[in-house]
Amino acid sequence: MKLNIIPLGGTGEIGKNLLVFEYEDSIVVIDGGVKFPDDELLGIDLVIPDITYLEKNREKIKGIFVTHGHEDHIGGLPFILPKLQVPVYATRLTLGLVRAKVQERGGYPDSLYRVLEPGRPIKAGDIEVEAFRVTHSIPDAVGYSILTPVGRVVYTGDFKVDYTPIDGQEMDLGKLAAWGREGVLALLCDSTNAERPGMTMSERVVGKTLREWFQRAEGKIIMATFASNVHRIQQAIDAAAELKRKVSVVGRSMEQVVRTAQEEGYLHLPEEDMLVDISDIQELSPSRLLILTTGSQGEPFAALTRMATGNHRQVQVVPGDMVIISATPVPGNEKLIGRTINHLYQIGAEVVTKELGQVHVSGHACQEEIKLVIRLTQPKFLIPHHGEVRHQVAIRKIGQLLGYEEAQIPITQLGTRVVLTPDKMEIGERVEAGSVYVDGLGIGDVGQIVLRDRQQLAKDGVVVVVVVLTKGKGVPNTIVSGPDIISRGFTFMKEANDLIDGAKSAAMTVIENQLRQESWEWGVLKGALHISLSNYFWDKTRRRPMILPVLLQV
Amino acid sequence: MKLNIIPLGGTGEIGKNLLVFEYEDSIVVIDGGVKFPDDELLGIDLVIPDITYLEKNREKIKGIFVTHGHEDHIGGLPFILPKLQVPVYATRLTLGLVRAKVQERGGYPDSLYRVLEPGRPIKAGDIEVEAFRVTHSIPDAVGYSILTPVGRVVYTGDFKVDYTPIDGQEMDLGKLAAWGREGVLALLCDSTNAERPGMTMSERVVGKTLREWFQRAEGKIIMATFASNVHRIQQAIDAAAELKRKVSVVGRSMEQVVRTAQEEGYLHLPEEDMLVDISDIQELSPSRLLILTTGSQGEPFAALTRMATGNHRQVQVVPGDMVIISATPVPGNEKLIGRTINHLYQIGAEVVTKELGQVHVSGHACQEEIKLVIRLTQPKFLIPHHGEVRHQVAIRKIGQLLGYEEAQIPITQLGTRVVLTPDKMEIGERVEAGSVYVDGLGIGDVGQIVLRDRQQLAKDGVVVVVVVLTKGKGVPNTIVSGPDIISRGFTFMKEANDLIDGAKSAAMTVIENQLRQESWEWGVLKGALHISLSNYFWDKTRRRPMILPVLLQV
Repeated sequence: MKLNIIPLGGTGEIGKNLLVFEYEDSIVVIDGGVKFPDDELLGIDLVIPDITYLEKNREKIKGIFVTHGHEDHIGGLPFILPKLQVPVYATRLTLGLVRAKVQERGGYPDSLYRVLEPGRPIKAGDIEVEAFRVTHSIPDAVGYSILTPVGRVVYTGDFKVDYTPIDGQEMDLGKLAAWGREGVLALLCDSTNAERPGMTMSERVVGKTLREWFQRAEGKIIMATFASNVHRIQQAIDAAAELKRKVSVVGRSMEQVVRTAQEEGYLHLPEEDMLVDISDIQELSPSRLLILTTGSQGEPFAALTRMATGNHRQVQVVPGDMVIISATPVPGNEKLIGRTINHLYQIGAEVVTKELGQVHVSGHACQEEIKLVIRLTQPKFLIPHHGEVRHQVAIRKIGQLLGYEEAQIPITQLGTRVVLTPDKMEIGERVEAGSVYVDGLGIGDVGQIVLRDRQQLAKDGVVVVVVVLTKGKGVPNTIVSGPDIISRGFTFMKEANDLIDGAKSAAMTVIENQLRQESWEWGVLKGALHISLSNYFWDKTRRRPMILPVLLQV
Repeated sequence: MKLNIIPLGGTGEIGKNLLVFEYEDSIVVIDGGVKFPDDELLGIDLVIPDITYLEKNREKIKGIFVTHGHEDHIGGLPFILPKLQVPVYATRLTLGLVRAKVQERGGYPDSLYRVLEPGRPIKAGDIEVEAFRVTHSIPDAVGYSILTPVGRVVYTGDFKVDYTPIDGQEMDLGKLAAWGREGVLALLCDSTNAERPGMTMSERVVGKTLREWFQRAEGKIIMATFASNVHRIQQAIDAAAELKRKVSVVGRSMEQVVRTAQEEGYLHLPEEDMLVDISDIQELSPSRLLILTTGSQGEPFAALTRMATGNHRQVQVVPGDMVIISATPVPGNEKLIGRTINHLYQIGAEVVTKELGQVHVSGHACQEEIKLVIRLTQPKFLIPHHGEVRHQVAIRKIGQLLGYEEAQIPITQLGTRVVLTPDKMEIGERVEAGSVYVDGLGIGDVGQIVLRDRQQLAKDGVVVVVVVLTKGKGVPNTIVSGPDIISRGFTFMKEANDLIDGAKSAAMTVIENQLRQESWEWGVLKGALHISLSNYFWDKTRRRPMILPVLLQV
């Protein structure tokens, strides 16, 4: 009688969350997210979890349960669901977002989408799964209780403890307390902000700040935020209504979320005709307009980025406009968003960022909130999840402050089983786990070799050397054509005649030497050309372009 | 009678500082820095200012005056000085660092190095240049007064107002006040931190925090910081001495700065045999050891990065070691340093960052310090320099708070002349200015075309298609060999047989179509191959590899 918890994503990393709970012949999966590629993953669009283990155990899977509609929790589903063909459970808004996302890549049987209500347990083989409400930066977010014969495990999902949520849907702390009294075997806790002391502020404070800024604005207001932050959007719309501004929504993902959220009843317009189409904004006075848009991360093709560089067809930023960036840069995006800010200042707009006033709060729990959840659930074991090693260690430190032993708080790794019995926790074997790269239509065809080649190409370009020889073996071969040199991304060829001539003679020397041998080999000649040209270019330029010898016989 | 101020670097950007002061036939240059390339400048090592304007006016240049020894102020000199062959003036430590740097790229005549003393004016044609002491995160930093018949301009260089500097060398506020009373025409002020309210803390607070952390450490201590922060290093050495730890210096730039600073008397060892060679550290108990090292930015080949990944030959990090990262990430480096931190936690080391206690303070003035300098110098005009547009705008806002009109505070751009007469300021014409890219030995040979090629290669790789045709024009040509396809960085070729076969037949169709024409053209055939293969691969993969058609006739 053992419960296995296997993180296939989200442990030791931020992103591509996927947790597996396995008890005998029952598997329950939570979330299926994506991660955005690090800089060295050149050309890669998305990173998704390796689900080999799930494919091998497909018949055991009772369902995928989704915590909330953020990319790092649902973005992998368009790739994962078609391979597994299992039911996917989520609350209403989340399921709507999953459906829209999966549709883009080809769709999924309607019968496998299942709406789920917090507080109503679902039988999943030998496991009973129950969602509980949490507060987060998107509506309808839940955590899960995983009840097995071995005991109950609680996974918070992404959460903060917001006592005054915009939609009035409080986090179900009572449920956590009740489970705590009954006995919780293990708690898996969001650790994104575990390094930060104190508590995360309520989303409500942003509404107050926004209203203050809106009041000061004289021209039009452009506000960029995460498209999925429906509560933020609601607060901006409410403030706009109070101040008699109409709202125009710009940017594909923002338009899509606003549409879904409105249809599903998560977004309420205080006045009926509040939304104006972007093509009609010229008819409004700038002082009567709020534009809600994407690009808060400085993404090169997002709407705000294009507005800032004068490349947006419908929206011109002019001096006196106020641009509010209601977000915090995701690590790695600092420079991109900095560029947008500089462009906006250059135009003469007023730019309001988090530093100037509380126009953004985090969606994740800080240390005091994490302590609260631990105290309420009183788990035997504490398993840090959803974060890098530094965040896992931070959770361990919090646990130790609350009296836990180090042995009760494992620092887990991707693919490593955490094996639980009613009173013991052990680290088990590893299953296949890791990253799969999505590049265009290709899923997994770009691996380390291709990436290493891209890195070399990126750094110093490519040089192709072409030679045509006479046919026949054993007879003395001669050069019919070449050697010719073509390069791209290496140096500006038109101004590098001497360099290229030198390369040709270096190649010629190598070829003639080889042909003089009694029996020469293709492979050897190619290798010799490679080495000789590599060294030649290194000497002359201190660069190492990729050398591609093309040898032909006619 | 006009004074021209021309920023050739450091305006509208962070880095590669270079300011030109021109009065009639006298030119004075201040600094010659580098900037580190943004992510999209693939393969570029360094970015230096375009000095075409200085080369054209070489005979007017009376000297290059250096403010301090940081890369963004001296890193361009190895490229600039040899082209100009003019005297370079700096304080003693700064000149030592310039000399070491210039030597690496080939050297410079000894007679052109000139040591300069703050407070002793130097005649530079019609301009009188006088350095004044400022406090900054490197010793021996100065700002400059540029006195011309039109009036006096003060340039602060990089500074903070540290009332308790480690070396006792206070910022010369008295001089600024005296000039202010006499009348200052314009002030150019460091604007790096102009968005931050308050005052930057004294370097001295870091010493206190370091001592506290050192006291708590049980194993060895590894502290990473900027190599040039001699005061930080001094404070770490002092704390180590108090706690009976020896110090080992690891990392090329750190070793070099410590050597220069010791030789020039800027670094003092409290005990004679305090420094131990890295090869001897095995003989010390870990509790008796402090390692000072580089890598505080997570640079891939820096010492701390190698230690964190187990790739440093002499230093092994073990559980219980304390690693102090006494720095703040330069924008863009957040992810790199985050990786180092995660590796260190994975090993089980204790990691101390700025967030856990004041182990780092900035070297740049915040808003209150900038106000102080403006009030002391009382300039007629305020010219924001050393920063991006956002920082320049922040200076403008500070100036407006202090009663300046917008017209007195120009937002300058690279290469644009600011023309001053005794009571007027105008924006003049632009001179040639911008960025020159250094890649290996090449200076300026990599431009937009090569960079665009690198970006395409980085994203989707390269596909070479080779065809050999029979010779002769007007006669019906036939294919002798090919079409063959070679690719790198595109997809894993060994598993892409179908894709490649399809590409070959697409190419074959194009070639046969062309050869069937009565008179076919090389250029047309190449173009057709390019389009056809581009479209073919886009359809199949949604990628756009660079297509290189190689056509030969034999």
